[in-house]
Amino acid sequence: MQYYPPTLLNAIKQLSRLPGIGEKTAERLALHLLRAPERYAASLAESIIALKGQTRLCTLCHGLSDSEHCRICANPSRNASLICVVEQPADMVAIEKSGGFNGRYHILQGVLSPMDGIGPGDLRIQELLERINQGAVAEVVIATSTSVEGDSTAAFLAEKLSRLPVKVSRIASGIPIGGDLKYVDQVTIKRAMEARHDL
Amino acid sequence: MQYYPPTLLNAIKQLSRLPGIGEKTAERLALHLLRAPERYAASLAESIIALKGQTRLCTLCHGLSDSEHCRICANPSRNASLICVVEQPADMVAIEKSGGFNGRYHILQGVLSPMDGIGPGDLRIQELLERINQGAVAEVVIATSTSVEGDSTAAFLAEKLSRLPVKVSRIASGIPIGGDLKYVDQVTIKRAMEARHDL
Repeated sequence: MQYYPPTLLNAIKQLSRLPGIGEKTAERLALHLLRAPERYAASLAESIIALKGQTRLCTLCHGLSDSEHCRICANPSRNASLICVVEQPADMVAIEKSGGFNGRYHILQGVLSPMDGIGPGDLRIQELLERINQGAVAEVVIATSTSVEGDSTAAFLAEKLSRLPVKVSRIASGIPIGGDLKYVDQVTIKRAMEARHDL
Repeated sequence: MQYYPPTLLNAIKQLSRLPGIGEKTAERLALHLLRAPERYAASLAESIIALKGQTRLCTLCHGLSDSEHCRICANPSRNASLICVVEQPADMVAIEKSGGFNGRYHILQGVLSPMDGIGPGDLRIQELLERINQGAVAEVVIATSTSVEGDSTAAFLAEKLSRLPVKVSRIASGIPIGGDLKYVDQVTIKRAMEARHDL
């Protein structure tokens, strides 16, 4: 590796800091960039700079945006009285792809995790309470993940929201659609059994 | 995906053009860059620009360099009378890592491949002949790969070099060290058997 010129070594070093990119892959990517057209390398570098410089958080939902309000918050056809609370922007995208939700979102930017030193003050919980206090919100669907941290965060939020005039619900957990029971983990089956409903 | 802001979508698009990086991985990398420190994203972008702008070919061996002569060609302790011919800069690095060679290199920048329209004029063969004509070269080791194209290129070079006052050799092929015979492919075994030598 030390036989490459410093420019190449530096590009390999920077690329290998990306998640899931080891030194070998970084070497392959850097050698590819060297052979690729000048225009492509420039547009890749520019897109990374623009990504950091121009992407901001929506002032309403704290999701990713390039203007004050994100596309969903700015869309008048979305149901403003229904708010779905998620951990990260990628969770919001997953729900959007499902097509099963027409309300707006609130992105916590994380999950309660005392082990990592993340408390309520590190999440956008105060901003959620303020949104609800401004009225016009009828229901909050808590869609944090079904991990221990996600469930704790959901319980914490439910307790906070119980003092406000708003309906609070939790996204259902159970057997995945198309899931074969024998391959589903025991905790999921136990929870799904407890959450059984009449037909 | 279309729920992300355009800056993020563009970064995902540019990253997914890298080899082996699909749309899902590009999304993960872009979201990582968004969370990463500003300084890291900037240094990654700068390293890509510097890679294209400042990396050049060594005027002697045509390997990657950031100045007129690469480190190996500029190193007076390397044996200048011994030249190893390889296809790509990465091949040179592989040989350097082995520590088994103390001469200099000549990087062809490819391999003869009529199917892809790559003929002798597209490789740095003329430059190799000129280097030898300038004298001071005693032996040329051809270390192109052992594929059909690599072998054809080696044969072509051997024919060209046979007219010059220089010894021409080919890197040995055979059973890899530590290789278990039952896992080695038949062509390699056949070739290794033909190339057997006295003990």
